[in-house]
Amino acid sequence: MEKTEATTTIDIGESSKERKGKAPLLPNPPPPLVANGKATTGGYKKGVAIFDLILRISAVATAIGAVATMANAEETLPFFTQFFQFQASYDDLPTFTFFVVGMSFVLGYLVLSIPFSIVSIAKPLAKAPRMLLIVSDTIMLVLATSTAAASTAMVYLAHNGNPNANWLAICNQFTDFCQQSSGAVVSAFITVALLIFMIMLSAIALRRI
Amino acid sequence: MEKTEATTTIDIGESSKERKGKAPLLPNPPPPLVANGKATTGGYKKGVAIFDLILRISAVATAIGAVATMANAEETLPFFTQFFQFQASYDDLPTFTFFVVGMSFVLGYLVLSIPFSIVSIAKPLAKAPRMLLIVSDTIMLVLATSTAAASTAMVYLAHNGNPNANWLAICNQFTDFCQQSSGAVVSAFITVALLIFMIMLSAIALRRI
Repeated sequence: MEKTEATTTIDIGESSKERKGKAPLLPNPPPPLVANGKATTGGYKKGVAIFDLILRISAVATAIGAVATMANAEETLPFFTQFFQFQASYDDLPTFTFFVVGMSFVLGYLVLSIPFSIVSIAKPLAKAPRMLLIVSDTIMLVLATSTAAASTAMVYLAHNGNPNANWLAICNQFTDFCQQSSGAVVSAFITVALLIFMIMLSAIALRRI
Repeated sequence: MEKTEATTTIDIGESSKERKGKAPLLPNPPPPLVANGKATTGGYKKGVAIFDLILRISAVATAIGAVATMANAEETLPFFTQFFQFQASYDDLPTFTFFVVGMSFVLGYLVLSIPFSIVSIAKPLAKAPRMLLIVSDTIMLVLATSTAAASTAMVYLAHNGNPNANWLAICNQFTDFCQQSSGAVVSAFITVALLIFMIMLSAIALRRI
């Protein structure tokens, strides 16, 4: 009797040990699931970060195009009087000077932001570089948009003039200058579009999936 | 010998049962902690959402100010010839027309976005309305900035003129018109600043704390 009791208690002891062995195994599955979820989110966010870097390099290219085209936009007309030579360059219009300065600033920012974008690829779950990028991208978006829009207003005026204010169109004479400045403005607007996409990507990456 | 072995095994059996009883209790604490964390984040995000609503209503006010000032900016000079009366209104300059149309659009968007901002207050942890707001806010930021910047370029030109392009300043004659349009532009830039803050707030709210 005693021996059987002993064996039964030993059996219970073993079974409870087995249960005890199973008990820590049951709560274990969730951590790997969470880890898998994080890995999936990490992979997703890494893809977003790589796309962000590609957009950023494209934006650098379009910003260089905008600044270079506008800075080199000048035209000297083939006829001149004794006292005056007809010449147009970007610094004749203060708005175009603002364009060159503003877009150079945006260009510099975009180049400097590339390392932060690379950090986002290396550490896809880090929030700090992404927050920094979305805040500074928004400010630079405003700068890029204002230079582009102000120059668009001047390019439009140079093309069409304004009879109400007696401002005559100058593009009839300075055709090349007007074409170059228009091209620079278009390039600036492409930079603006790329910056919008970058902000949206950062917002998607910040979102918890 | 056997009896002592039996008692020891019984002791082990009981102690293992006690451990088994403790085992499910140990994994329990984490869920309440996570729930507390979520509650704190929810309260934090609710505060951000309320601040977003306040900024949005302020932006509606400044946008109304910008549109109303520009739309009512007109001036008729007290002298006139037999064939012509000197009059200036916003639709004499296409850029100012763009300003009125664009800022009206921004104003309409801001009014329509208020319900989504209220949804964010009611459900601070919902990501969908916040994502919608950050994306549409960014697009409207670009529209508001471009109208404001383009009009700034024209206001600058109206004030200072451009001797290189033979564009004369018209603000010597139309002083009231120029003051009103300048005020409208300033109001538009305040709207832009408020939109920037709203985007930053949305980014902070989307961030996991």
